[in-house]
Amino acid sequence: MINKLVSKIRQTGAPIVVGLDPMLRFIPEHIRDAAFAEYGETLEGAAEAIWQFNKEIVDKTYDLIPAVKPQIAMYEQFGIPGLAAFKRTVDYCKEKDLVVIGDIKRGDIGSTSAAYAAGHIGRVQVGDKSYLPFNEDFVTVNPYLGSDGVDPFIKVCQEEKKGLFILVKTSNPSSGEFQDRLIDGRPLYELVGEKVAEWGASCMGEGYSNIGAVVGATYPAMGKVLRKIMPKAFILVPGYGAQGGKGADLVHFFNEDGLGAIVNSSRGIIAAYKQEKYGRFGEKNFGEASRAAVEDMIADIKGALENR
Amino acid sequence: MINKLVSKIRQTGAPIVVGLDPMLRFIPEHIRDAAFAEYGETLEGAAEAIWQFNKEIVDKTYDLIPAVKPQIAMYEQFGIPGLAAFKRTVDYCKEKDLVVIGDIKRGDIGSTSAAYAAGHIGRVQVGDKSYLPFNEDFVTVNPYLGSDGVDPFIKVCQEEKKGLFILVKTSNPSSGEFQDRLIDGRPLYELVGEKVAEWGASCMGEGYSNIGAVVGATYPAMGKVLRKIMPKAFILVPGYGAQGGKGADLVHFFNEDGLGAIVNSSRGIIAAYKQEKYGRFGEKNFGEASRAAVEDMIADIKGALENR
Repeated sequence: MINKLVSKIRQTGAPIVVGLDPMLRFIPEHIRDAAFAEYGETLEGAAEAIWQFNKEIVDKTYDLIPAVKPQIAMYEQFGIPGLAAFKRTVDYCKEKDLVVIGDIKRGDIGSTSAAYAAGHIGRVQVGDKSYLPFNEDFVTVNPYLGSDGVDPFIKVCQEEKKGLFILVKTSNPSSGEFQDRLIDGRPLYELVGEKVAEWGASCMGEGYSNIGAVVGATYPAMGKVLRKIMPKAFILVPGYGAQGGKGADLVHFFNEDGLGAIVNSSRGIIAAYKQEKYGRFGEKNFGEASRAAVEDMIADIKGALENR
Repeated sequence: MINKLVSKIRQTGAPIVVGLDPMLRFIPEHIRDAAFAEYGETLEGAAEAIWQFNKEIVDKTYDLIPAVKPQIAMYEQFGIPGLAAFKRTVDYCKEKDLVVIGDIKRGDIGSTSAAYAAGHIGRVQVGDKSYLPFNEDFVTVNPYLGSDGVDPFIKVCQEEKKGLFILVKTSNPSSGEFQDRLIDGRPLYELVGEKVAEWGASCMGEGYSNIGAVVGATYPAMGKVLRKIMPKAFILVPGYGAQGGKGADLVHFFNEDGLGAIVNSSRGIIAAYKQEKYGRFGEKNFGEASRAAVEDMIADIKGALENR
């Protein structure tokens, strides 16, 4: 799957991913009103609003981008109808030939991680039949439980040609509380990064591994070190835009070949119409505002990479 | 919610929790056949088999136990129908007045953790209405992202009188890979345990905090240390039975008051009918076998606590 991601990044010239994290307050009133008119102010109504919102953003941006990253929590909060909207979004993005990174941050003991892996990137057996329940292309994984919690995900990646992004250094302000603590003089995130490189060796694509890492845009100096520790790992970089990361902060997440990183923006793209900068589009044309924000993000990152 | 858990433990004399982790291969053939006859060998068929299996085990054990712990991965692997069976199981256990610990091991950056917390132990707003989408009583949380990933869960616990069990030292063989690494001479899990004590102070019940910890039965010496570091935290102890933990290993997880820990068994209870020891019940009477296994587990732990 990393080969497809690399080829789509080359084709679009856009090492970016759009985070489909649809909070209800981001969704324009006309979409919410239509959904509530049909389903009432219910979980089903919320799920329908999310789906219509996502569909428009995907329709207006899919030709510019290689990948999307739906954050499952934003769907799971609306219960079963919300999760059905997650599934529908994944399916639709795959129809549009986008690479889908399920931001699920799962991770458990071996047999339990195996169940998550089967459900999200693999297949489950029911009697004589097998199914691909969620069928994302990549998922994010939490490494706190160690190798035997991660191995079942890797095994499924090998079997199904899928991929992972493992949390190494997250973008949030208190990520350092545990991740930065020194062990034999080196921060924990470096040890996790070394493990990612080791795990990744067993699941290589052409040039890059199917096992990547998450490193926040908000910690560029750490990104530079981790880039060297995991030379074959693609880095998924959250924290651009709304969380404070800028294009110039990101250059060290990339290798000399201009590859090796994919930068996520969620709010900055999907709620672009709420920014003064894109106010000219108006709420009704929120999809066009998202398209303009994608174009600006691509230009920002391209410019930063050219000027490094 | 910790007050309810303590009161139910006192009332039943059973500091145990039954892990409802229904793998299809644990489910007796007659249940699977009936479900597949109705829904085919589909995700819906698998979900129906899980639900019927769970219902029988709950019906046969609910009067003996204070709590259940459904592991969401075992449902999530069957996609939306599987998650609907999770929800149905949670609802049914609450009807039976059991405390429900959702073993979800979520954890993310602040706004995303807030969505998970709302969906699982809190409420979401849709227009003027609010809903309790999954409505568990406790959930398990992964601490790798630090305080700002945990705080939104604590906030919801304060508002909704719910509780958490935060992963401190997990039961799996490679949990030590990161959790045991020394930081200023002390293992990471101790630092996480200190944080649990600190977080717990803001969400106290009577005597114990609503913020508990997960510490594996497979690491009794570490349990003894962690018991002292987090005197007010209830410890959820997985790893009893199938994973190798025995009653005698568990005594140091408890305080002198005989409280402070709740021991989980999953396979050992729900698939008891497959053990030679309970073979006399036969596959059809799997619920009775589970009841006998619960009685034996209670006696094992009670005996160990009396002999300490």
